[in-house]
Parts: sequence; C-alpha cells; structure tokens
Amino acid sequence: MGKTNKAIILFSGGLDSTTLLYTAIKDNYEIFPLTFSYSQKHSVEISICKKHLQKLGIENHQIINLTPEIFQGSALTSLANIPKNRSKKEMEVGIPTTYVPVRNLIFLSTAVAYAESINAKHIFIGVNALDYSGYPDCRPDFINSFQETANLASREGREGRTISIHTPLIHLQKHEIIQLGFSNSVPYEFTWSCYDPVVLSNDTYAPCHECDSCILRESGFKKAGQLDPLNRITV
Amino acid sequence: MGKTNKAIILFSGGLDSTTLLYTAIKDNYEIFPLTFSYSQKHSVEISICKKHLQKLGIENHQIINLTPEIFQGSALTSLANIPKNRSKKEMEVGIPTTYVPVRNLIFLSTAVAYAESINAKHIFIGVNALDYSGYPDCRPDFINSFQETANLASREGREGRTISIHTPLIHLQKHEIIQLGFSNSVPYEFTWSCYDPVVLSNDTYAPCHECDSCILRESGFKKAGQLDPLNRITV
Repeated sequence: MGKTNKAIILFSGGLDSTTLLYTAIKDNYEIFPLTFSYSQKHSVEISICKKHLQKLGIENHQIINLTPEIFQGSALTSLANIPKNRSKKEMEVGIPTTYVPVRNLIFLSTAVAYAESINAKHIFIGVNALDYSGYPDCRPDFINSFQETANLASREGREGRTISIHTPLIHLQKHEIIQLGFSNSVPYEFTWSCYDPVVLSNDTYAPCHECDSCILRESGFKKAGQLDPLNRITV
Repeated sequence: MGKTNKAIILFSGGLDSTTLLYTAIKDNYEIFPLTFSYSQKHSVEISICKKHLQKLGIENHQIINLTPEIFQGSALTSLANIPKNRSKKEMEVGIPTTYVPVRNLIFLSTAVAYAESINAKHIFIGVNALDYSGYPDCRPDFINSFQETANLASREGREGRTISIHTPLIHLQKHEIIQLGFSNSVPYEFTWSCYDPVVLSNDTYAPCHECDSCILRESGFKKAGQLDPLNRITV
C-alpha cells in the first residue's frame, strides 16, 4: 500500500515522541514532523530531532521558534534549577516547576494551522496521562476539549470534515511505551529525555540521571525488562 | 481607583482591536498588548500598533513573530490576490480567501501562555461574529469552546481559577463598534483596517478602499453617521 495520509507528528526527540513517530511510520502515514524551539534548557533535543530524521530520510521537518517571553516562570526555560532526585510520590504532588505554560495548547494549535496549510487531516502527539499527571495539558480531558475547539476554529471543521488528534500513548505506562517502541525497532540510543543535559564536549551530551524525566525513563526501562541503550549522544 | 487587573489585549491596530483597547483602558485594566507578525501583507499594522501605544504611554508591548510556513494558503500571507470590490452578499458566502488557518486559535493560545507567565487573568480579543461571519475562528461557539479548553490546559484552570476571554465586540455590528469607539475617544485616524495598503512613500500608506475590510469599514462609518478620519497614515 502507498502512503495515503499526511500526518503531523509533534516530535521532540524524546522517548515518547520518538516511539510515536515510529508508530506512525509503521501505520504508513506520510510524516510531517513539527519541532518547537522555545529556549528550553535541553535545546540539544532539536539537533537530535534533525539528525534522527536525516537518518530516517524524512525531509519535511518544520522547526518552529517560539519567543521565550510567553513562557516565563518555568524551570525548563529560566535560570531556576531543575528539580532533582525526586521520588515518584513527590512528582505526583501538584504541578512541577518544569511545567511550561500551556505548551501543548500552543504546540497543538500550531499543528492545526500547519495541517490546514498542507491539507493534512491527522496530528499525532505523544502526551501521556499517567507519567506526567502533574501537567494539566497532558490530560485526556484537555485533548478531547482541544479536538472540539480545533474543529470549531478551522476551515476543516466548518466545512464538515475533521482534523483528528491522535494520542496513542495517552493511557500507556512508561514501560508499555518502551515495549511498544522495541516492537517497532525504535533506536532508543538516539533519543533524548533529560531536562538538564551534562555537556561532555562541544557536541556530546550525557543525561543527568537525576531530573524527573531521567528518573521516569530509568524506571520505565527497568519495568520493561530492558537496558536503556543511551549512554551519551553526539549531535 | 488604582489599576487592579492585568489584561492582555490582542492588538492589531485595526478598527476593532483599537476600540477594544480603549474599552479596556476605560475599564481601568492594566494593559499588556500582544501583536502578531506573520508575514501579513498589511504588516504596516505592526508599526501602527507600536506608534499608537507609544502615544498612549503603554510600554508592555509584546510582538510575537510566527513563522509563515504554518499559515500557507491565505491571500493575506501569499502571492494570491486580495479579493476586491465584493458586495456584502458575496462576502457572506463560504470562507474568504483571506482566512488565515486558525489564526485566532494560535493568537489566543499564545495569549493564555503569556497570561500564565505574567499572572494575568484577563484576555481581550476583538472578534466579531456579524461582520466576519465567514471566519470560523470568530464565532461565539469557538470562543466558548476555547475558554473551556484553555482552562483545562492551564495551571490556572487546574488550580481552580479561571483565565477569562473577553469579547465585548462579538455581537456588535460595525457601526455599533464605531459608536462605542467614538464614546471612548478612539482616534480612528490612527487605525488601520486595509488588507492591501497603497504605498504612497517610504513611510506613508493609504487604504485601498476595495478589499472586504475597507468596504466593511466604510459602510460601518456611513451607518454610524460619522466620517472616517483616516485618509493616509505615516508611521
């Protein structure tokens, strides 16, 4: 079967969105990855996205620059320290300081505009309700509501068609995402989760192993019965 | 009474959003204007916004650059011609070619992020359901749905507070907006509506008088029994 459906994939180069990417490839979508640059501390992820897509021979990569002024107050985009060595229990209390104001609302809205621009009907986002329960913009209620709003805002919706927001990972636990990824041959050695990269040299980075994202990744691999092949990454 | 409430005003320098600005000033909000640059043909509006706010002594002006790639297929952002000399009847059929894909969804999403960043609880947008019935993202249904989605996505909503989307112009006809503006001393000679500016010199522009936006403006002034004081504008 040829590729029949254009799909925009919100792609940050991390464990979740890379698994998402390989799922959409397997399902034979024509892939249009969308990556955001917003002065995130771990902006190395953008170089990783580029290199990952080059290796896959995917050319339609859009990188969108968002001005940092709209994302104040997050530990991911400011001088504030990234929280370290927290237990899962601690992660579950309230909204983490790494929350970036309505980031997924902006990412998805941009994806809908881009979808209308290139006549795509599918948007994939790797949100996960279980491991990031503290982020309001990862919850199924938000996604469902956004789907409705997007179709009210768009030409597609007005003309009786639909832009579908796909969230195949939303109800999976981290180890289940990893298992899904292994079944689709995701090269996890070339994915990046860490919020606070350790710079080893000009172009080589190691994860900190202490931020929430590193800790969730480690426990996911453990529970999946797999070794994390990521040690350091050169971009 | 001192200024008690921060309000983000989506401000494009046009007739509607300038009337909106003066309404919010009169209502004693602390004003944070937000303007978008997205390769619009009438980008002169951005210079007009800046100058207008300087005259008012409002300093917190954010100008957000959006990449043109996400807004393809609109006559406002492409080489396609702006439709001219259409009757109101013609304007009411379908979605105009000047529709920019889910522009207000992106503008509002960005405003919500910015609101969370500066701890503002109010967002004003000058959408109008009557004169722009063809734009899906100007309809009350969209605004109501967005309000719900935004509060599901945000820290504010998660913590039981609300970011309010104010649309005081949504049910007004153009002449009623103009009457409201005159009652609040809006200097309409320094507002810009035209989609297809006539360049008179390096820094001086005149409206085309033929695009939908010019035509709606002219008929609004006529019905309001007022003369449009805008002749040409120097920025």
